[in-house]
Amino acid sequence: MARKTGSHSDITGPRVRAAALKLFAAHGFAAVSMRQIAAEVGVQAGALYLYTPDKQSLLFDLLRDHMQDVLDGWAAVEKPEGPVMQLEAFTRFHIRFHLERPEQVFISYMELRNLEPDNFKALEEMRREYENALEAILIAGQDEGLFDVDDTKLTTLALISMLNGVTSWYKPDGRLTLGRVEAIYSDMAGKAVRMPRWKERKMRKATQEEPAE
Amino acid sequence: MARKTGSHSDITGPRVRAAALKLFAAHGFAAVSMRQIAAEVGVQAGALYLYTPDKQSLLFDLLRDHMQDVLDGWAAVEKPEGPVMQLEAFTRFHIRFHLERPEQVFISYMELRNLEPDNFKALEEMRREYENALEAILIAGQDEGLFDVDDTKLTTLALISMLNGVTSWYKPDGRLTLGRVEAIYSDMAGKAVRMPRWKERKMRKATQEEPAE
Repeated sequence: MARKTGSHSDITGPRVRAAALKLFAAHGFAAVSMRQIAAEVGVQAGALYLYTPDKQSLLFDLLRDHMQDVLDGWAAVEKPEGPVMQLEAFTRFHIRFHLERPEQVFISYMELRNLEPDNFKALEEMRREYENALEAILIAGQDEGLFDVDDTKLTTLALISMLNGVTSWYKPDGRLTLGRVEAIYSDMAGKAVRMPRWKERKMRKATQEEPAE
Repeated sequence: MARKTGSHSDITGPRVRAAALKLFAAHGFAAVSMRQIAAEVGVQAGALYLYTPDKQSLLFDLLRDHMQDVLDGWAAVEKPEGPVMQLEAFTRFHIRFHLERPEQVFISYMELRNLEPDNFKALEEMRREYENALEAILIAGQDEGLFDVDDTKLTTLALISMLNGVTSWYKPDGRLTLGRVEAIYSDMAGKAVRMPRWKERKMRKATQEEPAE
């Protein structure tokens, strides 16, 4: 798709990006040269510049594409009814999606510091869009009296951190299947935000309302 | 402060480590040379080798000292009675302690990949010791019927990830005080693991026991 014409027809975007991702994740952005990336792709350094203007653009492309994939991935998930089920869908999606991309997750946190200000800002906006998707679920649950969250913004960040952590320890051949890990985490997330039944009853009494079910 | 004497008597560990920490956090271990660290300290590169054999030792010292500080810090906390209060004490300690050391936290995650196998193993053991302290609280709560945790090991890792996340967004001049952040996080952690009252009642009924209080 990103194939170039002429003599560099094999320097495709995906190959350059894959090489950069691998090297950045292994050694860190600052320690990797365009020459090393070119060598990993199997071309001369000069040929690389036909595809990308510089290392900063390459880093930004990687981080932006990753965030766009996250956003598209969540947009493509069929949403169940109601905040409780949606929170479960979100946690399961987040864990599965990120576990398949450990290098992208790693550089997305580690190399933020190496983004130039405009690129950093653009990425922060995409990240916020994703956070807002989760926060919207929390707010809906809060409005329906299903969740009992002190601060929806903070809880959003706390839940995402908790879910991200999976990538740092999960081993596909470990003692727990991915499905089991998803179930345990989404259960924890649900319990962390859910309105306790005693509090729900107390509130019903206070407002003299009948239970909804 | 950065004054030199002839005999290198002022190249103290703390100064070298502070320089290495700052540079590793800013640029990544692989991108920083011993020469740069020496320049940051204000000495010749050769003088640095009088203090530390190589960059790897310096990195390991930083990560090990940080983990030792964490372990000592938690050991020094006066433990309240019972798993519920202990979990709150742990979450509050972890947040406060790590927020004061953002660079150490950052390199402790980012530079694990650059540790040589023996050093990595030593650090993993220290990290496990800390995780075990939290898991012991969860197990005690589980045994006393106060917590309802599917997998104490997994829950330990999930809670620590959640708490670590604070360092990536907290601003001391932001809208929330540290005390408020601690309160919200420890509340979430507590709710995520606590035995729901309805389940507690159901279990009491099943075992024909009277409530403890």
